[in-house]
Formats: sequence, C-alpha cells, structure tokens
Amino acid sequence: MDAIEAIKTRRSIRKYIRKKIPNKTVNELIELGMNAPSAGNEKPWHFIIINNYEILKKIPIFHPHSNMLKKASLAILICYDINLEKHKGMAVQDCAASTENILIAANAKGLGSVWLGIYPRQERMKGMIKLLNLPENIIPFSLISLGYPADNVVKEKNIDLTRVHHNHWKSN
Amino acid sequence: MDAIEAIKTRRSIRKYIRKKIPNKTVNELIELGMNAPSAGNEKPWHFIIINNYEILKKIPIFHPHSNMLKKASLAILICYDINLEKHKGMAVQDCAASTENILIAANAKGLGSVWLGIYPRQERMKGMIKLLNLPENIIPFSLISLGYPADNVVKEKNIDLTRVHHNHWKSN
Repeated sequence: MDAIEAIKTRRSIRKYIRKKIPNKTVNELIELGMNAPSAGNEKPWHFIIINNYEILKKIPIFHPHSNMLKKASLAILICYDINLEKHKGMAVQDCAASTENILIAANAKGLGSVWLGIYPRQERMKGMIKLLNLPENIIPFSLISLGYPADNVVKEKNIDLTRVHHNHWKSN
Repeated sequence: MDAIEAIKTRRSIRKYIRKKIPNKTVNELIELGMNAPSAGNEKPWHFIIINNYEILKKIPIFHPHSNMLKKASLAILICYDINLEKHKGMAVQDCAASTENILIAANAKGLGSVWLGIYPRQERMKGMIKLLNLPENIIPFSLISLGYPADNVVKEKNIDLTRVHHNHWKSN
C-alpha cells in the first residue's frame, strides 16, 4: 500500500475476524517499530508480543478500553527501559513514534489496530507490570491490539484549517 | 512510495538543496499529521509553518541541535492546546504520533526531515513561545526541519532481537 494512503486510511479497528497473523508479519511490524526516530538515537524500547489468550483476557480487568483484546489475534506491548533513556523525558515520545510506525504498517498490511494508552495511567501501568512480571526499570507505554478487520468503517476527514498557522500564532 | 519502504528508509536528513517545497505538499503533510490517532480523538494539535528565513535563523540561538534550519526550506512547529487535552498527559503522545506521520510522509514524497525535540526542554519551549508569540495555552512540542535532501546516507538496520519478548518479560 502507498505510504500516503496508509497514513490517511489508518483508523482504530476494534472488531476482528479470527485468523492468525503470521509470525513473519509480526516480526516485520516490530522491526518497523524499531525504525522510529528517537532522541539522540537512544532507542529505549522493548516489545512484548502477547498472543496467549489467558493473558490477553486479563487486560480488560485493569484497562477500561481494552475489551477488543478478547477477540484480537495478538497485542504488542511497547515498553521503555529507563536505563536506556539518555535524554530525560524523551522516551515517551520515542515510544509514541514507534507505536505510530506499527499502526501505519499494520494498516498497510491489511491489519486493524487500536492504540491503547498505558502510560501515564498508574492503574494500567501497575496492571501490565504485574501481569507480565516486568522488572523495575521497564515502563509499559502503549499496547497495540491487532487483528484482521471485521468492519470497514471509512475514516472521516480530519483536516481542520483553523489549526494551521504561518510564521506566527494567529487565532482563527 | 510503498508504506513499509517509507517507514523503513526514513532517517534524519540535515543537509538540503535550495528548492522550494510546493504549498500543496506542505498542506498535505499537515493533513497527514492531523490524521494521527489521539487519546479519545481529542486532536489537540496546531501546526505552524515557518518559512520566513528571518525567523528560522533565530531558532539555533536557543535550540542547540537546529543549525540545519539555516538551510532548510521550511519548518513545521507542532504545538498542542492545553484546553483541547481532554485526557491529561496524553497530548504529548498525540503530537509525537502526528510528528511521525509527517516524517514518514515527507520521506515518501522525497523530502528530508529532522525531528527537533522542543518539549519538555524549558529553554527551547520559552524560545519558541517568544519567537512566535504563542499564547499561554499553546505548548510547543516538536519542530520538523524540511528540505530536499542533499545527502543520501543509507539507513542502518535497527533490528535488535534482544528487545523482543513473548507473553512475559525475559531478560536476554
């Protein structure tokens, strides 16, 4: 799929058909996540592929918007290692860019996805840390639900010209 | 350009040839930035296109890594409005996803870009606020330097399998 189209048509997909995502595809998505820019090239990220249904179904207990995981093929948790964050406060931005890479690539590969926010919500972070037994230095950042789409809602246009300014601030 | 290729080959480009980027291209980049996901669809972003050289050349005075702006065709400042941030702490992630969309789209369109971090560095934020006369509720987040590339460095492979885990944390 063309890059511009992949960015333009990406949307949150919460309904999936039951079909396994090939390992090769999952690995490629993660490689693309690792291709995000990061502050001073610090690359603070880790990726945990969750395809064990017993684990997936426990996430909605502590994450209020994650019911779709019960039907997802798998999820990818993006974390960062505080010991790899050379530029304080930047790992969150690095991981957000990495998350977005995976969402765009998933769309290009015909997959549906949802970005589930974990950080900075304490109850969600604690839930993930406990569920996956994360060490102290690993901060769970975002969880990406993935599956083959069962719905085909067309994305609304998001352009809002009142948000565009030239060379200085101008209230619209 | 293919989406996967656009993500895979994106890298920071700091040398540019002098050539104007068509307005249509800039506007499309911003539209794609607006197509990023955001928490609860809050879309907190604003985009300031900076193509006035007198403004661009002042940025390196307060931003230590921005010398390439003196040769850039233009820059886009992504900001967020704290009054549009419905989900506290999430606007930063929304704007990072929006920034990444623009970087990928720029690469797909043959442009070179650099993500210059502004938030949360106080001196850079204050510099941008003063330079562009931003109101109190507008937080400058990232600055994207854009131009037609004058160098053609091939991106190194970023894959690191020690960062990939399955269903639970495993130290490598």
